[in-house]
Amino acid sequence: MKKNNRIIIIGGDNRQLYMAEYLIKTGFDVSIYGLIDSDLKYVDNLKNSIKNSDIIVFPLPVSKDGKNINSTLPIKENIDDILSYIDDDKIIFGGIIGKGIENKFKKKNLRYYDYFCREEMTLKNTVPTVQGILKVIIENIDYTIHSSEIAVFGYGRVAKITSDVLLAIGAKVTVCARKKSDLVSAEIKKFNSCNIKDFYKISNKFNIIINTVPDPVIDRNILENIRNDCLIIDVSSAPYGIDFASAHELGVKAVQCPSLPGKVAPKTAGIIIGETIIDILKEENLWIS
Amino acid sequence: MKKNNRIIIIGGDNRQLYMAEYLIKTGFDVSIYGLIDSDLKYVDNLKNSIKNSDIIVFPLPVSKDGKNINSTLPIKENIDDILSYIDDDKIIFGGIIGKGIENKFKKKNLRYYDYFCREEMTLKNTVPTVQGILKVIIENIDYTIHSSEIAVFGYGRVAKITSDVLLAIGAKVTVCARKKSDLVSAEIKKFNSCNIKDFYKISNKFNIIINTVPDPVIDRNILENIRNDCLIIDVSSAPYGIDFASAHELGVKAVQCPSLPGKVAPKTAGIIIGETIIDILKEENLWIS
Amino acid sequence: MKKNNRIIIIGGDNRQLYMAEYLIKTGFDVSIYGLIDSDLKYVDNLKNSIKNSDIIVFPLPVSKDGKNINSTLPIKENIDDILSYIDDDKIIFGGIIGKGIENKFKKKNLRYYDYFCREEMTLKNTVPTVQGILKVIIENIDYTIHSSEIAVFGYGRVAKITSDVLLAIGAKVTVCARKKSDLVSAEIKKFNSCNIKDFYKISNKFNIIINTVPDPVIDRNILENIRNDCLIIDVSSAPYGIDFASAHELGVKAVQCPSLPGKVAPKTAGIIIGETIIDILKEENLWIS
Amino acid sequence: MKKNNRIIIIGGDNRQLYMAEYLIKTGFDVSIYGLIDSDLKYVDNLKNSIKNSDIIVFPLPVSKDGKNINSTLPIKENIDDILSYIDDDKIIFGGIIGKGIENKFKKKNLRYYDYFCREEMTLKNTVPTVQGILKVIIENIDYTIHSSEIAVFGYGRVAKITSDVLLAIGAKVTVCARKKSDLVSAEIKKFNSCNIKDFYKISNKFNIIINTVPDPVIDRNILENIRNDCLIIDVSSAPYGIDFASAHELGVKAVQCPSLPGKVAPKTAGIIIGETIIDILKEENLWIS
Repeated sequence: MKKNNRIIIIGGDNRQLYMAEYLIKTGFDVSIYGLIDSDLKYVDNLKNSIKNSDIIVFPLPVSKDGKNINSTLPIKENIDDILSYIDDDKIIFGGIIGKGIENKFKKKNLRYYDYFCREEMTLKNTVPTVQGILKVIIENIDYTIHSSEIAVFGYGRVAKITSDVLLAIGAKVTVCARKKSDLVSAEIKKFNSCNIKDFYKISNKFNIIINTVPDPVIDRNILENIRNDCLIIDVSSAPYGIDFASAHELGVKAVQCPSLPGKVAPKTAGIIIGETIIDILKEENLWIS
Repeated sequence: MKKNNRIIIIGGDNRQLYMAEYLIKTGFDVSIYGLIDSDLKYVDNLKNSIKNSDIIVFPLPVSKDGKNINSTLPIKENIDDILSYIDDDKIIFGGIIGKGIENKFKKKNLRYYDYFCREEMTLKNTVPTVQGILKVIIENIDYTIHSSEIAVFGYGRVAKITSDVLLAIGAKVTVCARKKSDLVSAEIKKFNSCNIKDFYKISNKFNIIINTVPDPVIDRNILENIRNDCLIIDVSSAPYGIDFASAHELGVKAVQCPSLPGKVAPKTAGIIIGETIIDILKEENLWIS
Repeated sequence: MKKNNRIIIIGGDNRQLYMAEYLIKTGFDVSIYGLIDSDLKYVDNLKNSIKNSDIIVFPLPVSKDGKNINSTLPIKENIDDILSYIDDDKIIFGGIIGKGIENKFKKKNLRYYDYFCREEMTLKNTVPTVQGILKVIIENIDYTIHSSEIAVFGYGRVAKITSDVLLAIGAKVTVCARKKSDLVSAEIKKFNSCNIKDFYKISNKFNIIINTVPDPVIDRNILENIRNDCLIIDVSSAPYGIDFASAHELGVKAVQCPSLPGKVAPKTAGIIIGETIIDILKEENLWIS
Repeated sequence: MKKNNRIIIIGGDNRQLYMAEYLIKTGFDVSIYGLIDSDLKYVDNLKNSIKNSDIIVFPLPVSKDGKNINSTLPIKENIDDILSYIDDDKIIFGGIIGKGIENKFKKKNLRYYDYFCREEMTLKNTVPTVQGILKVIIENIDYTIHSSEIAVFGYGRVAKITSDVLLAIGAKVTVCARKKSDLVSAEIKKFNSCNIKDFYKISNKFNIIINTVPDPVIDRNILENIRNDCLIIDVSSAPYGIDFASAHELGVKAVQCPSLPGKVAPKTAGIIIGETIIDILKEENLWIS
């Protein structure tokens, strides 16, 4: 006996298509709306289809304007319309749902889960993020990563794997952090280390700087002391890690790289969302396959 | 007292400009012809400039048609013209000189060196080649290298570093070779291994196949058994490693990638040529800096 | 102008001698008591020497019985005697001071620091601990680590480095943990992973089990299912990770390995204590060299 | 139908017992002579047992004196006695057979194979050799390999894996070789490199020197310039890599480590011999299992 086996995916981009493919392989009955793929079951009547589903999956982020579902193809129904079709026996998934929409879910007493809040999703997303960093580096330099001097700011999940991979490719990696324990951990792994507050003194040594710290640690003092041809890549989130006003004024080459997983590896990113949804369903005893 | 310090670089591409920069840093007096760079000394009168040089550096390859120097900018003098300006006290460097031009050098009794024949150059070029392979992979897939099944054909220099780097990024790497000793060596490094003649039996397992063997080892038998979405990258030299006729007929995605170093990392490739020239000068006691 | 430059080291073992050597190199004036080394300044009159010192360093642990200083050579003065010589202008260091002695320090209003509580010390000690694990493994097996199936219980600091090193040597490493996030992190690094509660089902696959969890996770259920020749190494602290009663009864080969750093690398362990003391002095602005 | 399935193992040490166990698991009918193990079939009448066997396996080396089989337990029959029992339909295996015994085999027109000459055996033996080097290092130092300065002489099979493993453990590794191509290869892998002829200039920097070159490259000039506490490990074969007379005179700590596989990992070493014998049987179409 199957339970909660019928999924409707509303909106999104390629990731949702790959997620759909993955969920079908896992045994779900999947239909899509606001997405196009010749192999997938497309929904004509959204209202009826929601009625006939157990699970509704919204994209990542759910909405960019708070009113409409974020989607490559336009969706004529807005969020309020869609919510009016959803009864409280449905299970809802979304990524970065946001306060406004969350309140609407609560008001309707809906059962919902934000898959983006899950630690395993964050952990798994480090892998496509690091591949994205590699891609951005390789496409922006005309020399080799091997033998390059690369500074990595921060020593969290993304920074650790990035540093490991760059070292394996042959770069000379300097980990820049504020906490003593991060610096010691980096030294144990045989990285060079530098306290962020002292970085401006050695900044002219680096070909590439990668920032993962969501705080403007790469300040004017540093920007004034780097090489002309230094490439700065910022993969942090708001408020971001670079003093962009100064960078612009000084003519520094700084690349902002948000949301790398969906851009460089939508297939992997989609599967990760699918796996996370299944993890949640299992934990909550909501799924019988 | 300096000796053989004046270099003229004739023809080529960006690599020659980076090489020029490197040679200047190392202490040489460098001028260029058939190349443009605002920071470098450009030659107007080629004949005079050759007279006033100790060393003449031709590009890689020296010529594509056997008559003219290979160059991004057109050079009005042909090879015979240029040779007529060169006295036998000059030292000539070129990459892949070729029999025809070599005979002209010999007839004029010129002292010449083919830097492309040097083992250290081949070894060093593996590094930008592997970066090129990474670039081609990342730009042709929408999933992560991490967790992908990748087969590497051959176990020479490029294949070894490629396998190491892909493993470090998290791929599952299978080394495919013909020699028992290569297979055992790969197993010691904890790669999976497969004799090339048995590969067709497991070929449908792989997302990516990278070939380094200059011999059509990826034959129709294999091509018929791979996945639809398998990406094949061939970095070997003539006669190349894929049965391209069958690949074309079967609609297989096969990417031919010759000469990666100059394409993905011209700066590094140029410096490698510069280093090799200096190595040769030192070995032959031709240089006093 | 130097400040707090005179150190007396009381009690301990080889680590304290190596620490002394390191502190002398760093610029301190060091004397020792209850230790013997031909190159170091030995103290005859403890009372006077304490008066003439700025800093007093006790060993790790400070005491095993709460009354006497832990020392290879016997020290005739007990802790109360020694405390009676110490004025409140002195700076005291000790490792695992313990409540009883701490209260005595407090009563006398002394300034004291437990260097063993410092995170950088714990972090740095992972390195000699892992070397100790390697040593215990190599000395207890007659086959190679390479190709062995090794389970590592826990995924904290020691477990992570141990797993990395064993993988680099060629072992097949399975990380066993309870937290989903630890299992996912291990999978990202391409380790096999297993929830501790399911381990008994696959336990007969392993040649070696290394435990870092201070909780009897290796229970009778597991012990009954391992191979006859399985080697179990426990490097956790009390209450330790193995059901030793069952292990004994079942004739399992289980090696208890506390305090590896001091045993396998006393020199490194001593230097780490010295570095930690200097870190504390710097942070507290107590040292001018 | 089985062919050549009956094996008699004559002489040797623990390795032969592990080899026997491995061959039994693979499907052979195995008996032993001059060895003791409660689980294995022991031969009483050597002459009859040889008659009833297809394959005779001698140890590694076959003989130390040219007259008797090398064995932990004494064997009363000498080689000539044993040879008199062997008809020319038998298949003989031995490791380092030696000219004298080889001539006797030839004179009797026997079919024999020296398993020690096989490349896969040499390759596989690098793994236990490297483990042996690790063991010797760890047992002879009181500090960590991590952060140590280690020089590796030579860049052949053993040296490459040793360097990789030591780097993975956190050592600073300098590869010392004579060939330019070896030095460049080592630099590509991010090792430090040093031409052997220049090593004496930097030799006082190293904690540990490991030699794999069978030629006295560690000469008096180097020995006079190393640190007092430098540990030298020689794993090369005759004529060995150290000027031992000078080392002795200068009081240098030099450890000679021949035949590590059999000493540190007899089980693995025995299995490797067994695998090699099977490889040979397969290649020669001598075995039907």
